[in-house]
Amino acid sequence: MKIARFKTETRVAYGVVEGDEIVEVRGNIFTKFRLTDTRHKLGDVKLLAPTDPMQIWCPGINFADHIEFARGVVGSDWLLGDQHPEPWQKGRNALIGPEDYIIIPKDSGGDVHFEGEAVAVIGKPCRRVTPQQALKYVLGYTCGNDISERAWQKADQTFWRAKGSDTFAPVGPWIETEVDPSNLDMLVRLNGEEVQRANTADMIYDFATIISYISQQVTLHPGTLVFSGTTGATRAMKPEEVVEVEIVGVGVLRNYVRGEE
Amino acid sequence: MKIARFKTETRVAYGVVEGDEIVEVRGNIFTKFRLTDTRHKLGDVKLLAPTDPMQIWCPGINFADHIEFARGVVGSDWLLGDQHPEPWQKGRNALIGPEDYIIIPKDSGGDVHFEGEAVAVIGKPCRRVTPQQALKYVLGYTCGNDISERAWQKADQTFWRAKGSDTFAPVGPWIETEVDPSNLDMLVRLNGEEVQRANTADMIYDFATIISYISQQVTLHPGTLVFSGTTGATRAMKPEEVVEVEIVGVGVLRNYVRGEE
Repeated sequence: MKIARFKTETRVAYGVVEGDEIVEVRGNIFTKFRLTDTRHKLGDVKLLAPTDPMQIWCPGINFADHIEFARGVVGSDWLLGDQHPEPWQKGRNALIGPEDYIIIPKDSGGDVHFEGEAVAVIGKPCRRVTPQQALKYVLGYTCGNDISERAWQKADQTFWRAKGSDTFAPVGPWIETEVDPSNLDMLVRLNGEEVQRANTADMIYDFATIISYISQQVTLHPGTLVFSGTTGATRAMKPEEVVEVEIVGVGVLRNYVRGEE
Repeated sequence: MKIARFKTETRVAYGVVEGDEIVEVRGNIFTKFRLTDTRHKLGDVKLLAPTDPMQIWCPGINFADHIEFARGVVGSDWLLGDQHPEPWQKGRNALIGPEDYIIIPKDSGGDVHFEGEAVAVIGKPCRRVTPQQALKYVLGYTCGNDISERAWQKADQTFWRAKGSDTFAPVGPWIETEVDPSNLDMLVRLNGEEVQRANTADMIYDFATIISYISQQVTLHPGTLVFSGTTGATRAMKPEEVVEVEIVGVGVLRNYVRGEE
């Protein structure tokens, strides 16, 4: 099942995507809901980021082939967390949805990269769960783009603006509830050209481990987003380009790059 | 004016504190509200953290006399941001209100410290404001305690659990809208003994500078909290202790320390 959050001219609602239609639901997608008789053409509504999350978590370096690249960005002392993830929070202010603009800030030198990732959507309040229990607290999976300004990532003590500037967290297009998170192909296309390809099977810490680890100290609330981490090397995007993150079996998250006016 | 958020047996509401009473308001404290005829004795309601913030921001090291102490915690390469603040986000999950319990996690070694701080409460959406404009976007000021687990602060790449574990962000008791943020005495008492004393006049980056700086890349939404940073040296708290942060002219934030069961 694909659960989307969308906006019509009059309201924001959730719905279930069936083909090129979206069937509006009544109730709470995290607890209990039912389908209504209201259907919209997908093209007639604006899809939003699929939840209104309290927090957006990322695991630190989580693919072996991203280590060397990351060290080049932030310095050679940036180590892989060799016993556990190194969680950090992506700015909630940065969240945008499918088809929204990624804005390159006017005071950035322009070295703003994509990072295509799979994203787990927390479905139930989650605290001190084991890795064996953790996936039971996940509603489903979606696509995310961990937009990263590399000069700021190198210069600053934290990722607050490098990865948390407004519009730097595209997520969507919907939550797929029936995929196996241990085997998801993750693709990024820039203007149609494939520029990243990985699989969640290669995550150093899988979603169950990341969620369990964060939940030892942090209550994860329904709607919270947990990114997978990214892979390999990335490159800068320029204004007027189009970036797509595809998680095969989930969907395609498309965003347009613009310069700030 | 002192604006508090509180809970009765039936609902959550905002009110204006007058002496030992709280006058319930109708409307939106960030845009337009009026007093109602409903009054409660302060002792009859549960005060909550004064806003439901999208984010909680801190400025990095912001008092000269905290630099040496901080270097002792996280290593000598932790530098003062010598041209601008080094913002980071305290976990939204960690927020608690006055009189709530600060829980020392069972897997902490117990080196959990207070850090008494003044906190600005954003009142209007705020993006790319100058320092000269910034304080016009502040509704008022409250007290905050940047609870910090020093072993995790040293061990981890980020403050996610050191300063973001559940209950590590006590804030309150209310928002005072009529104080001068450039001259606020900040006191901490542990079991009644004064253990920290500072004044916001000694902030390296004042609230106007911090808010302006963050707002260059991040839209600050109404209710967002901006901590001042802390001062000097701190020490560990133990279960059954009582910690109070007083911002003179604002109020006293009291919390009780407990061990996790």
